[in-house]
Amino acid sequence: MLTIDINCDMGESYGRFKVGQDKDVFPYITSCNIACGWHGGDPATMERTIKLALEYGVRIGAHPSYPDLQGFGRRYIQMSMEDLTAGIRYQISALRGLVESLGGVLSYIKPHGALYNRIASNRTEAQTVYRAIKALDPGLSVMGLAGSNAEMIAKELGMTFIAEAFADRRYTPDGQLQSRSIAGAVIRSPEDAAAQVLSIIRDRQVITSDMTALPITAHSICIHGDNPAAIPILKEVDHTLDKFSIIKIRHDQV
Amino acid sequence: MLTIDINCDMGESYGRFKVGQDKDVFPYITSCNIACGWHGGDPATMERTIKLALEYGVRIGAHPSYPDLQGFGRRYIQMSMEDLTAGIRYQISALRGLVESLGGVLSYIKPHGALYNRIASNRTEAQTVYRAIKALDPGLSVMGLAGSNAEMIAKELGMTFIAEAFADRRYTPDGQLQSRSIAGAVIRSPEDAAAQVLSIIRDRQVITSDMTALPITAHSICIHGDNPAAIPILKEVDHTLDKFSIIKIRHDQV
Amino acid sequence: MLTIDINCDMGESYGRFKVGQDKDVFPYITSCNIACGWHGGDPATMERTIKLALEYGVRIGAHPSYPDLQGFGRRYIQMSMEDLTAGIRYQISALRGLVESLGGVLSYIKPHGALYNRIASNRTEAQTVYRAIKALDPGLSVMGLAGSNAEMIAKELGMTFIAEAFADRRYTPDGQLQSRSIAGAVIRSPEDAAAQVLSIIRDRQVITSDMTALPITAHSICIHGDNPAAIPILKEVDHTLDKFSIIKIRHDQV
Amino acid sequence: MLTIDINCDMGESYGRFKVGQDKDVFPYITSCNIACGWHGGDPATMERTIKLALEYGVRIGAHPSYPDLQGFGRRYIQMSMEDLTAGIRYQISALRGLVESLGGVLSYIKPHGALYNRIASNRTEAQTVYRAIKALDPGLSVMGLAGSNAEMIAKELGMTFIAEAFADRRYTPDGQLQSRSIAGAVIRSPEDAAAQVLSIIRDRQVITSDMTALPITAHSICIHGDNPAAIPILKEVDHTLDKFSIIKIRHDQV
Repeated sequence: MLTIDINCDMGESYGRFKVGQDKDVFPYITSCNIACGWHGGDPATMERTIKLALEYGVRIGAHPSYPDLQGFGRRYIQMSMEDLTAGIRYQISALRGLVESLGGVLSYIKPHGALYNRIASNRTEAQTVYRAIKALDPGLSVMGLAGSNAEMIAKELGMTFIAEAFADRRYTPDGQLQSRSIAGAVIRSPEDAAAQVLSIIRDRQVITSDMTALPITAHSICIHGDNPAAIPILKEVDHTLDKFSIIKIRHDQV
Repeated sequence: MLTIDINCDMGESYGRFKVGQDKDVFPYITSCNIACGWHGGDPATMERTIKLALEYGVRIGAHPSYPDLQGFGRRYIQMSMEDLTAGIRYQISALRGLVESLGGVLSYIKPHGALYNRIASNRTEAQTVYRAIKALDPGLSVMGLAGSNAEMIAKELGMTFIAEAFADRRYTPDGQLQSRSIAGAVIRSPEDAAAQVLSIIRDRQVITSDMTALPITAHSICIHGDNPAAIPILKEVDHTLDKFSIIKIRHDQV
Repeated sequence: MLTIDINCDMGESYGRFKVGQDKDVFPYITSCNIACGWHGGDPATMERTIKLALEYGVRIGAHPSYPDLQGFGRRYIQMSMEDLTAGIRYQISALRGLVESLGGVLSYIKPHGALYNRIASNRTEAQTVYRAIKALDPGLSVMGLAGSNAEMIAKELGMTFIAEAFADRRYTPDGQLQSRSIAGAVIRSPEDAAAQVLSIIRDRQVITSDMTALPITAHSICIHGDNPAAIPILKEVDHTLDKFSIIKIRHDQV
Repeated sequence: MLTIDINCDMGESYGRFKVGQDKDVFPYITSCNIACGWHGGDPATMERTIKLALEYGVRIGAHPSYPDLQGFGRRYIQMSMEDLTAGIRYQISALRGLVESLGGVLSYIKPHGALYNRIASNRTEAQTVYRAIKALDPGLSVMGLAGSNAEMIAKELGMTFIAEAFADRRYTPDGQLQSRSIAGAVIRSPEDAAAQVLSIIRDRQVITSDMTALPITAHSICIHGDNPAAIPILKEVDHTLDKFSIIKIRHDQV
């Protein structure tokens, strides 16, 4: 029997600045990556998001980033390794304290945006970020791009790596995500997204931008909450999973 | 035998912006209030300050504030009770995670600046802040102005209140701190500060701005690290404590 | 012949955080209050908004605020008069430089949110803010609540005051805006809003929350861009203005 | 007769966070680069610094940076060219408005920290920054590293380039500044700094880290206000200039 986890970035609103469709997305996902205040996610938003996650029985991860509200964490910042380490630990600690106080458990860490991309390809920074997490709590898993440098570093450090693949992003032949600046890089058709999910889970491959098949092993599927088609995609993915008897993991029942 | 705790605000630097004389102050104090990033205290500074506290065996408290780097947390901000609650819990959680990861224990919370003053006199906000802390961990103590509204609220909520008095600030006859805008409000003479400390500990009274004696019961004496005379004051206080056989509490040996 | 100005807060998005429906609102208004970066409005958003204003021939005002992205400028901050003065001048100068560089003219200043409310009722702060503006350029007008303390102070200082009234907010009998926390305080019916506008312009009165008529003299009508019914309201107001031959002022043709 | 301009970064304090020794430095310099709020320099500090500059008859430049208080603008941030353009224009406009309101003139722009270094070596970003400045006001000069990519780009764009050299930084043989992480990169001996200044002005060369002579043509000498030896260096430079009859330019008398 095939199983899969579905994750989405959540809690990225900041005060009156609203991002995403959290309430509508929660019923469809099994893991949520909660922003920690540095690219989005003021403390009250964090607490509201944690409560929704607990209500829906969704596994909770931290979604730390570079300190960059203006750029939504999507701009690389050349932080010193000391500042990066402490900054990651600060954000995770803040979220974890709130989660535990509300009766939940923080399970994993998924760095956000430019930091996610940075550790997917940069050895030193991946080591720095993952060591910072491990020193905080060796029981924390890390989520990152399937098949990337990040996966290799996590394994070298003996950490549990949750390899993720994307439902709504086109892959290049070398396994990277196609840049958002290229037309078609973001998949908006629910059918195409669901077909990509099925291919990843059942066939362990993804059809890339040049129509070749790329082998991929993923434990979790990410769907972007800010994709305008997020809800239709989530519904169509659900429909496809049902049809092929693939089970979405309910972490609270594990 | 009389005992006393000496506390100081620490870790208030922010990146290259340096505040205070932390390294020189640590040898003299027994409790430190560590900034949590909202008025000062970037994450790397927080970690360095925690390490110094552990090295010197100094008790660790969190020093949360309004979100106000530009005003150093000294300006009242009309936050909603929901935002205030979540903001306090966020800052404390961030610091606590770092402290515990480095092998220490977070013992107490002392709100900073305008927030300190606000809860010293405002019932609703004191309740909000203290309930936020209690919900996070009922084992946390709170430190605040001796004899204030804050002390009353803490006791109503069944929380341990560490009543503090000031070595280097002049009191008004009604037990408030004289405004810094008044000449003489900040005591810069080491002898005067030490005399005030002795009066508070031994005689349980402080001589106010109109030269009357005000009864006061304090468990901790605060000395401001940004007082230019902080080190001479700390030395003179030490000398006076020695002379009168008053013991500074070593929390790590309790 | 009756004339009226219609104004709306614009350019309040911040990076990827989107607020308002600027592109849809511009065709209906004759003045825009552009955010200056402290509660919303990153520089690129400011420039895009200025270009839209110039394209639509809409008069440009600055919309400075307290430094408070987290609270969208809706929280009072106890700034010193020196900091408030310099902060207002900083924000206005930033916007004005961009406007002039793009070939436009900055005509007036409308403080935002909590600062707007503060100067509507507080004499010292209204004087501080208006003097800061006047010292920057005595030719700048100020826009504020019709009949308020702000109007009185502006006149005392010899400044041109653009008195505004609200299409989509209920008034209390004493001429204040009913708090948003009260049901019905925000008018969402296009017909009701248009009727209120007509009453203000033609009859120089507004029907308050207790159904009494309050005299009001307004030069400009504000419609909130974040009112979900903003576009229907603007259309209905246009329809009513047409019907009663009230002319919307085209400032670029003056 | 030889003449020279002496410049220093000023107004980099932020609220209660103090940086530099502005009051002591002003008597010795002829140009000041004033921070614009993004790496330091809150509005009240900006106004105080402008007033000092006017009092001492010192030429005023803007010192814009990446948006990075936490990193003091010393960290590269991967901004889009649109955001970089608008951000530069925003900061310069803010400062210029304050300067003009106080009766002064903004003469030139010197980007700060990581942005300074970026445009010294990166063609696209130098073009972006300089075009942003030129579009704001073609009369503004730009100050940058003598002999760098920045100088070349400025000339291509027909802009006036103020080539600067450093009194207190060691040069590498290829004309770059030696990294601060290398011992000796910052010159702290007043005699050595004065000798380097003399060599640059009189002999149009600087002795590099490998003791070779590198040709250099500079119109201005920069001294870092945060160098602990800044004042002794400035005094010794003055002494040397006197001895060799080199005239410090008084821009207010031009």
